[in-house]
Order: sequence, then C-alpha cells, then structure tokens
Amino acid sequence: MTEADTMKTLAARAKTDSPGLAASSIETRNLALKKVAELLSHHREDIFTANKADLAASEREGLPLPIIKRLRFDEHKLTEVVDGIQSLLSLPDPLFQTLLKRELDSDLLLEKVTCPIGVIGVIFESRPDALVQIASLCIKSGNCAILKGGSEAVHTNRILFDLIYEAGITAGLPKGFLTLAETRADINALLDCDKDIDLLIPRGSNSFVRYIMDNSKIPVLGHADGICHIYCDASCDVDKAIPIILDAKTQYVAACNAVETLLVHENAAEKLLPLLSCKAAAAGVKLLGDPSASSFIACEPAQELDWRTEYLDLILSVKIVADLEEAVIHINRYGSHHTDSILTEDAAAAERFMLLVDSAGVYHNCSTRFADGFRYGFGAEVGISTSKIHARGPVGLDGLVTYKYKLHGKGQTVGPYASGECSFHFRDL
Amino acid sequence: MTEADTMKTLAARAKTDSPGLAASSIETRNLALKKVAELLSHHREDIFTANKADLAASEREGLPLPIIKRLRFDEHKLTEVVDGIQSLLSLPDPLFQTLLKRELDSDLLLEKVTCPIGVIGVIFESRPDALVQIASLCIKSGNCAILKGGSEAVHTNRILFDLIYEAGITAGLPKGFLTLAETRADINALLDCDKDIDLLIPRGSNSFVRYIMDNSKIPVLGHADGICHIYCDASCDVDKAIPIILDAKTQYVAACNAVETLLVHENAAEKLLPLLSCKAAAAGVKLLGDPSASSFIACEPAQELDWRTEYLDLILSVKIVADLEEAVIHINRYGSHHTDSILTEDAAAAERFMLLVDSAGVYHNCSTRFADGFRYGFGAEVGISTSKIHARGPVGLDGLVTYKYKLHGKGQTVGPYASGECSFHFRDL
Repeated sequence: MTEADTMKTLAARAKTDSPGLAASSIETRNLALKKVAELLSHHREDIFTANKADLAASEREGLPLPIIKRLRFDEHKLTEVVDGIQSLLSLPDPLFQTLLKRELDSDLLLEKVTCPIGVIGVIFESRPDALVQIASLCIKSGNCAILKGGSEAVHTNRILFDLIYEAGITAGLPKGFLTLAETRADINALLDCDKDIDLLIPRGSNSFVRYIMDNSKIPVLGHADGICHIYCDASCDVDKAIPIILDAKTQYVAACNAVETLLVHENAAEKLLPLLSCKAAAAGVKLLGDPSASSFIACEPAQELDWRTEYLDLILSVKIVADLEEAVIHINRYGSHHTDSILTEDAAAAERFMLLVDSAGVYHNCSTRFADGFRYGFGAEVGISTSKIHARGPVGLDGLVTYKYKLHGKGQTVGPYASGECSFHFRDL
Repeated sequence: MTEADTMKTLAARAKTDSPGLAASSIETRNLALKKVAELLSHHREDIFTANKADLAASEREGLPLPIIKRLRFDEHKLTEVVDGIQSLLSLPDPLFQTLLKRELDSDLLLEKVTCPIGVIGVIFESRPDALVQIASLCIKSGNCAILKGGSEAVHTNRILFDLIYEAGITAGLPKGFLTLAETRADINALLDCDKDIDLLIPRGSNSFVRYIMDNSKIPVLGHADGICHIYCDASCDVDKAIPIILDAKTQYVAACNAVETLLVHENAAEKLLPLLSCKAAAAGVKLLGDPSASSFIACEPAQELDWRTEYLDLILSVKIVADLEEAVIHINRYGSHHTDSILTEDAAAAERFMLLVDSAGVYHNCSTRFADGFRYGFGAEVGISTSKIHARGPVGLDGLVTYKYKLHGKGQTVGPYASGECSFHFRDL
C-alpha cells in the first residue's frame, strides 16, 4: 500500500466515523476537551523534550530564525493552548441549535438545525500550537479532523497528536475523530480526497495557501493575501490618523491585517504627509509614493506592482486620490477584500465608504489590526476568510458548522399539494 | 476583440458596478422589480412571437420533445413569472440586516451586516422562465447577474433580457446590473472570470452541472446528482409507506428529489414488498432488487452500479438491510446528500436516522418530494444545494447574501490592547 492509499483509507475512516461524532453530546465533546487539557499539562515535560529535538534538528539544518521561533513549544505556549481549551469549554454547544421551526401544514413540521460540516482537513506550517488549537475547535464542533503539520515539527506534532487522540478515545469519541498525516506526499493525497473531506483549512504563507486553493476541488477556508488599506479622507483628524497608520503598519508587521497602502485625499495631503513622513522615519517605516505624493514628501516612487504587494515589512505605499470614489475603486480593484479603514470626521463619508468597499472588514477611525477573532470576542478563531461564500472575515466556531433540514410528517405525499387538493399554511413556531 | 475578451470586459463592468448596486435602497430594487413585471406583461405578444421563432427552429432541428417542452414560454409561463415577481416584492429586504451588534470597548462598535455576494454567473439550459426568475432574485438581493441561456432559446432570452434591462435602468440600477451572454464560447470565458464573478449557479442536467463544477475555480451553488433514499424501518406502517414511496417515485419522475433507492429492514420486507410490487406494477414502476429482495418478490437484479444511479425514470432499486445502521451507512456512502426519508412508527429510530444521515434533508414519514424552496415557504428558490459550505438544501434569497463587519472607532489602535494597557469588554447590544 502506498502512502497515498494509506491517506485515502484514513480519510475514508474519518468520513465513516463523522456521523457518530456529529451525534455525540456536548457533554462527551466537553469531556474530551477537559481530558486534552489534563493530558497536555500532565505530559508537559515529554512535549518539551520532543520539541527540543525538533528545535535542535532545525538549527542543525540551518532553518530560518522565524521558522525556528514559530516552532518553539514551551511553558508559555502550553499555558496559551490550555487557556484556549478552557475558553472553548465555556462556549455554548454550536450543534443542535434550531435556526428555524416552521409548520408547513398540520402535522408537517420543518426544522433547520445546526450540525458539523463533517471532515475538516487542516494543513499548517511549523507552529505546533496550531495543531492543538484546531483539533480542539474540531472536537467542540463535532468535526473529524485530519491534521498535517510541518515536517520540522514532526516530534512535537506526534506527541501532541498522541495525547489529544488518547484524550478523545478515553472520552468516547469514535476512532476516526482525529488523524495525523506526516509525510509530504500526504498533502497531495489529502487534496485529492474530495469525496471524504468537506473543507480544507490551510494555515501558512500566502504561497502555501495559494497552492492549496489552486490544487484541490475541496472548498478552502482562509485567505492568501492581506492587502489592507487606510484611506485618509479630506476631513480626517491628523492627530488620530498618524497613530492609527503607525499602529496598523508596525504593531505586528507580518500580520495579514497590517496596512500595506495608504490612500490620501488631495485636500488632506498637505496637513498629513509631512508629519507622517517624519513619524514614519522615526518608526523605521519606508514610504513609497506615487508622483503626486512625492510633491509633498521626499520618498522613493511606488510602481503599479506596489498596489498589489503585501509587503509584510516596514514599507508603506502612498497614493493621492481626488475623492472618496477614487479611493473605493482603488481598494476594490487592488485590495484582497480583507480589511480597509477610512479615517474621517465626516460621518456621511464614513458610511458611504463602509457601504461601497467590498471587504470582509470596513472600519471607521480605527486600526485595521482589529480584524481578529479574539478581538471580535469570538473566543476562538478558525482563521480569517476573504471568501464571500460560507464564512467571511474572522471565523469562529460558526465557520465549522452547517445545518440540515428535518421534516417530520405523518404520511404526507406531495401529490395532493401539487394538484391543489391540499395547501401549505406556513406558520413559524 | 475576441468573444472571450468581450465577456471578460462585461464581467469586469459587472464587478465595478456591483458596489453601487449593493448600496441601492430596497425602494429602488423593488421599483425595478415592479417595472420588470409591467414591461413583461405589456410586451407579452412580442415575447410569445420570439418564443414561437425559437420553438419553430427547435422543431426544424429535431430537438428532443422534453427540451422543446421546457423551451415554451406562453401565457401560463408569463403568469407564473409575474406571480413570482409579486411574491418577491412582498419579501423583506435581505440586505442591511444587522446580524450582530457588539461593543468591543467604549466607543468601539462592531456590527455584522448582510450585503450582496457581488456578481453571480447563472448558466442555464433551455427554460427561458429561469432567466426571469434568477434575474429577479438577483435584483432583489442587490447582486449583479451575468446570464447565459441555452442557444435554442436565443430569441426568447434576448427579448426577456432587453425588457428586464430596460426596467432596471429606468428604475436607476447601474449599467452592469445585468449582462446577457449569448455564445457557447461565452460559457468557458465565464468559467475563467474568477476575479470578477463571486458565485456560479448552473441550472440543467447532471452532466452539465458537473462540467461547470469541474471547470471553474469559482464557487458553485447547486447539485449534480439527486440520489434520494427511502428507508422502511422494522416498525414502518405499510399503509403510509406505499403511498409515500409511489409519490416519491412517480409524482415527478425527473425531479432531483425523486426517490431512486428503497432500503427495507429485513423484518419489514415480508409485509411491505409483495404489496409494493403489486402497486408499483400498476403505476408502471419497475423494481430492481438485491438477492435478498428477490426472495420476497419477482424482480430483475440490482447491480452495484444501481446504488449510484439517478434513474430519473420509473425505476426503483430495492435493498434489504439488517438494521437502521446498515441503512445509514448505505445512504451516506452511495447517496448524494440531498434528501432521505425514514418511514417508521418508532420515534427514537426516526430521531437516530435524522441525526446520522448526512444529507441536506432528513425526513420522517413523508415524501422526499417535499424538498423544494416553495414547499419550505421560502417564497423564491435559487436552487437546491448539496454542498455543506455556504447554503445547503433548498436555497432562497439567503443564499445570495453574505455579510461584512463594520467597526466604528474614535481613533483606537491595537497597541494598547496587545500590551494589556487596555482590554475589551464585549457587550452585545
């Protein structure tokens, strides 16, 4: 049996076991989560030892420092994931929620009830804490999960998986509730399992996510690019604008919700740009400007390609626009429909911007960095979606849930309704 | 300019105009719908004349009778589409609905508000009434639509499009609100417009829908197969079961929600099958049975392939199962996750079946033919989805709507929240 065959067999097992997990009670799923937290805490030293082996191997292989940093799983990370599980425990059951209850006719009752999506494939780079987080979210939402982590975290992922698996089985979850994929060949095998995997969640670099999106028929939840904008309107308050722009650019420069392009109304450029140029230089931020911006400040020229670039670095492209409409057209054309903010004291302009910009997050007078499930109060985050189908923006447990329609009858057939002998009365209960 | 270039230009125009349509008021959108109904009624004779030309051409070309039948647009069809528009007018605005309103901190207000998906590509075979229906749904939900109808309906589609377009423009909708694609080359050009088209809705045969799904990166709303099951449990009431099975098979044999496979508990076979065999023969239904079924009734053998076949014909495959679990495994394995029904007087068995079967519709003691947006009281139907991502089951206006997050601040930056200086208080309003 090849590795691809093994992966297909495991995916089929997950699919077969998914209705059983979907039917499990919230008590069982919460018990599993409690046991996960217990086992991880109890075996902390074994986890740290495994992680040290991965760290040593990565250093020997000379992997880049940011990767080694993300790979670290220490006391601090353990506390974080255990806290995450505790907060998941306190959230209400996302399953068995009645979204609609309607009597179609006497003794013919329609219910729309939430249920899990089924089997979720999660493919992530380096960070082993993501394994715990996503496995916990899937347990809470009754989804079977197939996890593929980065090869540099192989020992850490293996022990984390073993502990979570033991916890789930002890609590009574079906065998297929969690699967670990370990080889690189497994990724392509996973992408092929469109009959058994209902949703893919990739976590990693843009090119990695783009690869997943381009190479599978399975729907993908996530975002490849985060090209976020701030638009300073004619009536923006410079004292608010400068700190917001610097926060959005520098607070965490590698984040998908960091700002990449600043659009400035021509009537705001003179009051804003010289001061921004000064503060940006102090913060180590390099400005690239279109020809018009260059007439207000000294800066290198921005090219057409800059409007499409996610720098993930201390670089900000600046463009002068004639009005709000030009800003909106630029954002809808070059942006990634992630999060865009208008800075203005004109409430009507703000409302118009928020209506016309076609992004998951449209903000007024605040930093784009607020786009985050925890900051929205979702308690847990699956990821951020720039798709408009299914879930959009920061996605909590809701994004792992769908619904089914249950129709309870007493022997009804469609014939009499089609002929007009019977008719529906549609009464919401 | 090639046809593909033209299509891409038109799709880009739709994308550019979509924020304007998204911002339009319900008054404007309803006015457009009223004008559509008026213009169609006023120009009825022109429509019928165009349709007669299409019918004559199709007859000359010797197209199959079912296609010619679907192509007909007469007084009856006109009344139907105008009634459909009237019922759409009475539905509340699906846009600008607040789904969540949460104060993250003082003066930092998060709102989750419904908005259109953007640009919808609709590709349908033959039926010109589908053009009116889908264009109306898109107007109501503020989505730009690109319509591609069957070539055999070219004259009818053209006049329907012209009238709807005139109505929309008169009411003040943007130019790109509606686009007609007319050539076969346009289909492949449409499938390539993944930057400008947000969702595809194909309406037609299984192979047609499958082709669309397999040849585009754009998300697809719809279903290729409708392999629906009825499971007769040990304690089923034969007097209810026979009429339900016959209704589900014969009431409209070409429907996606017609039953294709009957699963019978071994303890119910003796009381059910001989009577069913007799009634089925009278109704012109041919039964195919597995070896065990053949021991109760005379029937041709069902092969493995039968369990995966959507007959769309007066044929029903029959399999005997040992228990409810075997029925569930069969349905989840061979079915298309559309609609499946259990017939039983045992409430616990019904609940278990409805929990474990992974389908958009799970029914108890009624016909699978109830799976339909009108019968669910949705007022209008976009289609039926067997996907678990986005919309599932019969889809009404809801399926054409997504949401965006609006965040209203007073100058807030993330820095102080990340450092612990500030904290969120999350208060739902």
